[in-house]
Amino acid sequence: MKSLTKYLVFNTKNRREYINITDEIAQAVADSNVKEGMVLVSAMHITAAVYVNDAEDGLIADIDEWLEHLAPTRADYRHHQTGEDNGDAHLKNLLMHHQIILPITNGRLDLGTWQQVYYAEFDGQRRKRAIIKIIGE
Amino acid sequence: MKSLTKYLVFNTKNRREYINITDEIAQAVADSNVKEGMVLVSAMHITAAVYVNDAEDGLIADIDEWLEHLAPTRADYRHHQTGEDNGDAHLKNLLMHHQIILPITNGRLDLGTWQQVYYAEFDGQRRKRAIIKIIGE
Amino acid sequence: MKSLTKYLVFNTKNRREYINITDEIAQAVADSNVKEGMVLVSAMHITAAVYVNDAEDGLIADIDEWLEHLAPTRADYRHHQTGEDNGDAHLKNLLMHHQIILPITNGRLDLGTWQQVYYAEFDGQRRKRAIIKIIGE
Repeated sequence: MKSLTKYLVFNTKNRREYINITDEIAQAVADSNVKEGMVLVSAMHITAAVYVNDAEDGLIADIDEWLEHLAPTRADYRHHQTGEDNGDAHLKNLLMHHQIILPITNGRLDLGTWQQVYYAEFDGQRRKRAIIKIIGE
Repeated sequence: MKSLTKYLVFNTKNRREYINITDEIAQAVADSNVKEGMVLVSAMHITAAVYVNDAEDGLIADIDEWLEHLAPTRADYRHHQTGEDNGDAHLKNLLMHHQIILPITNGRLDLGTWQQVYYAEFDGQRRKRAIIKIIGE
Repeated sequence: MKSLTKYLVFNTKNRREYINITDEIAQAVADSNVKEGMVLVSAMHITAAVYVNDAEDGLIADIDEWLEHLAPTRADYRHHQTGEDNGDAHLKNLLMHHQIILPITNGRLDLGTWQQVYYAEFDGQRRKRAIIKIIGE
């Protein structure tokens, strides 16, 4: 079995931001020399997500608005009694999930035509990380 | 390490449809000859989901109604400015997620009594695919 | 390739309960002697979730209230025509997802500082299980 571990670092300008990381993952797969296996891509934070969807700006704006509707910014989350102000970011993380697994076939990411991988930041403007872990052979 | 890759093809009559694929996955596990490992089952589209839940028609109708409530069909998604009309299907995909991982123990899917695997189509009536990727030994 | 399989058993006092299982998973990783690999942690039921987030009681109460808002307890789910009364628990399971994958690096769970793993029970007060499946080497 082969494996490869890589960490991506993010430091967004905005509190919420959506970053296409497909190329970084494809590069890690190439570096790993794994021909058949799986890649785990997982945010190392509880206020960010990793998801697969379309690289289309209108849709990304729709997603952001929808997340704010279902997991709204509010002053009165109980979590804020700890001094935090990011209760909504925790809920957005749970809704979108912090991780995905991608299949590797013949040494390449085995994705559908429109599948792009995004890191979604919900509480940014500081240093955050995601892990790429590849196993296979 | 052993591996096996298989693609499932769907072409639903209805725009939204829920298809039990547990038997197809169990057959792929048997074909793989893997005794201990994991199976990734992942939609290759951004308007479909793969999930685990009950094979009960009433519940499936409840799920469909609930998804339409939380991620509604609407004319005014920004994404529709591209000519698409499936913004809701992208959001339903994000809510339900496009993939699952199943454990393999002693050569069989290691599922709880009521766990059944479904492919959920949110923008069907055309050819779509899911990938089954098994690794283990 | 090495592997290890372990089952966790839960029997909660309350219908809904959130249980930190991070230490049990870390112990399984130590027992497996896997240095590089992945751990799947998956509820074996369709009315429970496994998720990663903060070990903070206020946030857990926020999550519980939010889940009840988005996937409410109701008498009139179609699923209840089967004699069940847990339609909401199925929807909460779908929203939160029943599983996660954790990376193993240098023989340890490779988590961010605040990432804790929870088993979330939505229809408890009876015996339920989760599976831990580790693969790697």
